Amino acid sequence: MECWSFPPRYDDAYAPPPDQPHWFPERETMDPAERDALILERLREVCAYALERAPFYRRKWGEFDPRTDLRSLEDFERLPVIEKDELRADQAEHPPFGSYTCIAPEDVVRVHGTSGTTGRPTAFGIGRDDWRAIANAHARIMWSMGIRPSDTVFIGSVFSLYMGSWATLSGTERLGAAAFPFGAGVAGQSQRAVNWMAQMKPDAFYGTPSYALRLAEIAAEEGLDPRDFGIRILFFSGEPGASIPSIRARIEELYGGKVFDCGSMAEMTPWMNLGESSAQAGMLCWQDVVYTEVCDPETNRRLPFGSEGTPVYTHLERTSQPMIRLQSGDLTRWESGPTPCGRTYPVLPRGIYGRIDDMFTIRGENVYPAAIDEVLSALPGYGGEHRILISREETMDKLAVRAEHTADADADAFRSRAQEALRTTLGVSTAVVAVPPNTFERTEFKARRVLDERALFHETVGA
Amino acid sequence: MECWSFPPRYDDAYAPPPDQPHWFPERETMDPAERDALILERLREVCAYALERAPFYRRKWGEFDPRTDLRSLEDFERLPVIEKDELRADQAEHPPFGSYTCIAPEDVVRVHGTSGTTGRPTAFGIGRDDWRAIANAHARIMWSMGIRPSDTVFIGSVFSLYMGSWATLSGTERLGAAAFPFGAGVAGQSQRAVNWMAQMKPDAFYGTPSYALRLAEIAAEEGLDPRDFGIRILFFSGEPGASIPSIRARIEELYGGKVFDCGSMAEMTPWMNLGESSAQAGMLCWQDVVYTEVCDPETNRRLPFGSEGTPVYTHLERTSQPMIRLQSGDLTRWESGPTPCGRTYPVLPRGIYGRIDDMFTIRGENVYPAAIDEVLSALPGYGGEHRILISREETMDKLAVRAEHTADADADAFRSRAQEALRTTLGVSTAVVAVPPNTFERTEFKARRVLDERALFHETVGA
Repeated sequence: MECWSFPPRYDDAYAPPPDQPHWFPERETMDPAERDALILERLREVCAYALERAPFYRRKWGEFDPRTDLRSLEDFERLPVIEKDELRADQAEHPPFGSYTCIAPEDVVRVHGTSGTTGRPTAFGIGRDDWRAIANAHARIMWSMGIRPSDTVFIGSVFSLYMGSWATLSGTERLGAAAFPFGAGVAGQSQRAVNWMAQMKPDAFYGTPSYALRLAEIAAEEGLDPRDFGIRILFFSGEPGASIPSIRARIEELYGGKVFDCGSMAEMTPWMNLGESSAQAGMLCWQDVVYTEVCDPETNRRLPFGSEGTPVYTHLERTSQPMIRLQSGDLTRWESGPTPCGRTYPVLPRGIYGRIDDMFTIRGENVYPAAIDEVLSALPGYGGEHRILISREETMDKLAVRAEHTADADADAFRSRAQEALRTTLGVSTAVVAVPPNTFERTEFKARRVLDERALFHETVGA
Repeated sequence: MECWSFPPRYDDAYAPPPDQPHWFPERETMDPAERDALILERLREVCAYALERAPFYRRKWGEFDPRTDLRSLEDFERLPVIEKDELRADQAEHPPFGSYTCIAPEDVVRVHGTSGTTGRPTAFGIGRDDWRAIANAHARIMWSMGIRPSDTVFIGSVFSLYMGSWATLSGTERLGAAAFPFGAGVAGQSQRAVNWMAQMKPDAFYGTPSYALRLAEIAAEEGLDPRDFGIRILFFSGEPGASIPSIRARIEELYGGKVFDCGSMAEMTPWMNLGESSAQAGMLCWQDVVYTEVCDPETNRRLPFGSEGTPVYTHLERTSQPMIRLQSGDLTRWESGPTPCGRTYPVLPRGIYGRIDDMFTIRGENVYPAAIDEVLSALPGYGGEHRILISREETMDKLAVRAEHTADADADAFRSRAQEALRTTLGVSTAVVAVPPNTFERTEFKARRVLDERALFHETVGA
């Protein structure tokens, strides 16, 4: 039952006893060096499989032959990374699923896609075996958070193109828990969501952190206390919030449950390949499902543990559209395991805390929007939303933050507290404007908070 | 493989050859008298099962003993019907799923519910075996429309509480076709839907008729022709439109595919128990899945074929929350089979065309909103939406219709054509006001078109 092979051969009837902490004890707690040796074997199999079926990889890799040229994980790092634009371009040229697809179109059983509003979206075509493998991987990782077959999982995120909802549902089904796929995004749905949670008392909640905060506000408006929902486990993806200590603490306080972060990229589904365990020690890299290398963004070579870099992902169990060295553009720091849960995977103690490209530089200092969120969320009197404005006066970058205060806070006191805290943490002076509660629209999806006007400045003055 | 038992024992690996028109030839084409004898057997089993597990049915049925008191289908008609309010009240008293639930809460694997915005919603708690049986039934009925494993099914309806989307998805999965569960209801999603259909060219579409019409309008705005989507089969539930000849003709003309109507009630899932086959001869009552009796709304006794009445439904394959004689409140006329597809089920040639309680009476004439929709949709120059206003001046009921004309139509000519056509068909004079195109909001869900001000009049003058 605890097989590890490519293609994967999961036993869909297997379930560990409820009191067993690890779904697959051997795969999860093995010696990392031994795991690396097996990963290398898998990589050879996946590369050979992709070369045989996917013109995309043949074009990309030239003379590379995994049988002779893949003798170490360092050899693997020589393979070029894939950027998302390449997938989009390839799919436009080879519709509907792209020449990196390794199964026939008629073997696709699920179609999803990216939800971007600009440019051509990318379609995901997933085969039956893949869909089963995804469900098995997600069930295993949700198990590690503490979800059990007797639980009810409330899925409070939109069911459309967004892979987050669908793959959480598949994991819930495979784990044998009850799924309550409620969705999000439709007018009036948030009010209904809190009333249903009050009535059904789910054991676990999935969504985005900002939506969980929004639902808590709506619950209060409806005269409900989220603590009465009885939710034990809240797990999140789609935003960095769940790994930001102040936001995590706020959600845990509001709901009285434990918060877990997870999620890499839709293309990498099973995207819970980055997923936190009951130890709450940061997201683990479930390397036997998806092989993660945290790399130097310039060279795309692996960095030693302790370093900050960008994750590069490789599927070890996908057969329809296997991604081999997909560059995420995300930003993280990784450490070696084991974590207190006994798993020997590498770990991302602070989760994914930025994008290579949404980090901005103010007067020479690197600033991450997530850091601003973190500072504000830790401040008493903070009303829950803010917007970041970057502008340029003459040649001087200016950073301004408009932040809501709570109804009962002194706006002036909050403003100066926030200004001081941001200056201290970011190392750059920040102009804070305190605005009344509920000034900014709440989102049911990923919050977009940064407005950078310097590009406009460049365009205007040609600087 | 072609079993028929209670509880059901489906073989999830079974699939007919693609060129076989019937999924289960024996069950679908058997002699109706022979089927009725087997239905009686099933009814005895289902009643005994429910009596043993559900206090709700013990209270409701008193001394009734299916072993001795259920010797004919006429005996069955003596059982009292269930009204939806009873389910709501029972669930409030016995949370979370009601005392009519026959499985333990921990055996529930799917939670859904009614989406009503007023009053306490009703929760559906569905067990694993039930969910599989639903998938099998829906796969079989979708097969009868002509959907095959090589097809892609685009599901363009909201994934939340609405059972329509979820049970269509389960049927698609079981049939082995590719599911593209796109959803609906989120801002901007309709534009994305038509662009994805243009890109992916699905073989089948599921949604509501009014949303299909709306999508065709949006496609035109985006410079797309829905005929280029290549959709062969469009199947609908949630509204009567797909059984209204003029609306069906309009959708078939716009998309160049065939239209099929299906759907009873969320509580009756597999709600495709009313479902049209490739013969397009009206919805069949798939009596071996759900036993339908078209009844006199006063006595709840079965009416002979050829009569108009209200469907009363009984689950023959559900084990979690079996409904036994659930009154629909819908209005239909039934006929005996067989239909040209060779199935021997009773058939509803005009589908569900009204509600007992949304039929309104104007000066002694019964009027159905669906009839007005039908008349307008058949008129040249009709812009696609309308609203119905019923009011009272002194003691005289007035019927007015505000109907959109097309951009190129002469508003006056359309107005008098519509007025004449409505008077002829309804038998009551109708004041028509022609309004410009796109006056009325389009819905992605069930269109609500009737405004009855007489109740207000009653309240105001105490009449």
